[in-house]
Amino acid sequence: VAVYTDLGSETLGGLIAEFDVGTLISAKGIAEGVSNSNWLIETSGRSGVTQRFILTMYEKRVEVADLPFFLGLLDHLAARGCSVPRTIHDRGDAAFRMLGDKAIALIEFLPGVSVGSPTPAQGFSVGAALARIHLAGADFGVARANDLERAGWRELAQNCGFSGLESVATGLAGQVAAALDDVDAHWPADLPEGVIHADLFPDNVLMLGDRVTGLIDFYFACNDSYAYDLAVTHAAWSFDASGASCDTAIGRALVEGYQSQRPLLPAECAALPVLARGASLRFLLTRAWDWMHTPAGALVTRKDPLAFARRLERYRQSDAAGLFFADPAAK
Amino acid sequence: VAVYTDLGSETLGGLIAEFDVGTLISAKGIAEGVSNSNWLIETSGRSGVTQRFILTMYEKRVEVADLPFFLGLLDHLAARGCSVPRTIHDRGDAAFRMLGDKAIALIEFLPGVSVGSPTPAQGFSVGAALARIHLAGADFGVARANDLERAGWRELAQNCGFSGLESVATGLAGQVAAALDDVDAHWPADLPEGVIHADLFPDNVLMLGDRVTGLIDFYFACNDSYAYDLAVTHAAWSFDASGASCDTAIGRALVEGYQSQRPLLPAECAALPVLARGASLRFLLTRAWDWMHTPAGALVTRKDPLAFARRLERYRQSDAAGLFFADPAAK
Repeated sequence: VAVYTDLGSETLGGLIAEFDVGTLISAKGIAEGVSNSNWLIETSGRSGVTQRFILTMYEKRVEVADLPFFLGLLDHLAARGCSVPRTIHDRGDAAFRMLGDKAIALIEFLPGVSVGSPTPAQGFSVGAALARIHLAGADFGVARANDLERAGWRELAQNCGFSGLESVATGLAGQVAAALDDVDAHWPADLPEGVIHADLFPDNVLMLGDRVTGLIDFYFACNDSYAYDLAVTHAAWSFDASGASCDTAIGRALVEGYQSQRPLLPAECAALPVLARGASLRFLLTRAWDWMHTPAGALVTRKDPLAFARRLERYRQSDAAGLFFADPAAK
Repeated sequence: VAVYTDLGSETLGGLIAEFDVGTLISAKGIAEGVSNSNWLIETSGRSGVTQRFILTMYEKRVEVADLPFFLGLLDHLAARGCSVPRTIHDRGDAAFRMLGDKAIALIEFLPGVSVGSPTPAQGFSVGAALARIHLAGADFGVARANDLERAGWRELAQNCGFSGLESVATGLAGQVAAALDDVDAHWPADLPEGVIHADLFPDNVLMLGDRVTGLIDFYFACNDSYAYDLAVTHAAWSFDASGASCDTAIGRALVEGYQSQRPLLPAECAALPVLARGASLRFLLTRAWDWMHTPAGALVTRKDPLAFARRLERYRQSDAAGLFFADPAAK
């Protein structure tokens, strides 16, 4: 969450001139994005009406290879009416440009704010918006493997190491080992798959009141099962930040909203608890890795892995289906 | 340069409701300000036309005591036609509000971008804008002492310590000791004083082309000599970032622009080189302190104290008056 690169106004002005959006009026580095730099840009617009954009500079080389997927997906979903920002193409119709060895893209600015304490009505809207990108992405012609799929979690845990996990919290290594065995034993096969967001935390949803105005930050988007994406979103939205308390009403509203657009198959419904345990494990492991590799005194706020250890435990309870459905028995 | 506090959209929305600016449409944490948190806010506006503002949260207690000075100064200067952002008062006409133990202020958004490589024409405009705030501030009824005035530099150097300064660069402690003696011996008395910006680096000036659209970040503003402020601005604008090379044309244009609004007294002209040595020493010392107290691996970019050690040396040369005036002999 930082602006890594300092671009001078001359460089920014020159970049903007490569797009048909008028001249640069204002540029503010914004604190969004984990591994890239972002500016909120205002231009004079094509027809004299000022316009706003997000200019993103991709700081890691590996991301450039995936930009045709990420940026093409935004255009694909926006063209199908999803609330995602469009990529602004340059005068040569390129979706991104290189500035030295870094890629930059100009992306539509969307109104809305990220919700801190969601309500069930907001959860419903988010569930519906998630289902709509699943449906609209079905005919997107490009695929991207999930870097953080279940098959890789055991290796991720090994990289953290027993003592590394124990250094985060006593007993964590044992909890992780049990969870790995659990998800490997119970992971569902043959669920419907397609393009998923894979990181739809409240940070990545812009809202005005109960309305979703934008789904953003598709940089974990990939192909995996739709129900797994819903499980990730459930873990992201229906718990408080500490992971200690789950708001059943939000979790159920999320699933209801999802089903208002795309009804789940019985196998998807049945799998949600184990998928949510998997989702919790995935964030537990990446947070633990970051935790171990971020000095305690660093200015970056470390995200607590235990917030997902607590979610994992909650999703293991025998009544976990009730976190998703008012009447699980009917499923 | 970071957003320290994470404000939820509910809190932000509630805050905005205390002002007569419509409802919250968008809020982005922006990477501006050294010791405070800032958001670029968009609201629906009073009459349906969207408006933008900067919302600032003051993270340090000490600043709250100075807010009547800082925010009152903005209003005073804006009312006199200076290009500074106005403070938006709340419905109870307060210039700032408390949120818990932190103060927040809503400040006018101004267009413009900070210049990376200024031109002489831009230097001229900045000099003129600086003089205009000096003139307009003359009847501002509140005063604030300069925390970083010359009288405190020796103590600042002692706090860094001999070995601390030498850890930044070999020989730096000796250069500082000589500079302290130099400025103490040659500092001018009885120059015209008033409210000064004291930190008018390119970062703190918004421009569109050659035009100054905003002077911002008045959080070092204080009462001191006008010519010292011009010397600070000269050191800030007419060198490259490394301090190794001085662009005489920019420096002279800056002074010319200043004099287009407020002609300097002969004593002020004569004092500019020693004032600029003092300005260089002030930034050298605060940067050295920050350097010694920031781990090399921290995510915050450390600003190199040597960039001001080099300026200090340049201002010591016998031809230093030529950095300010095309024909110093005529002064």
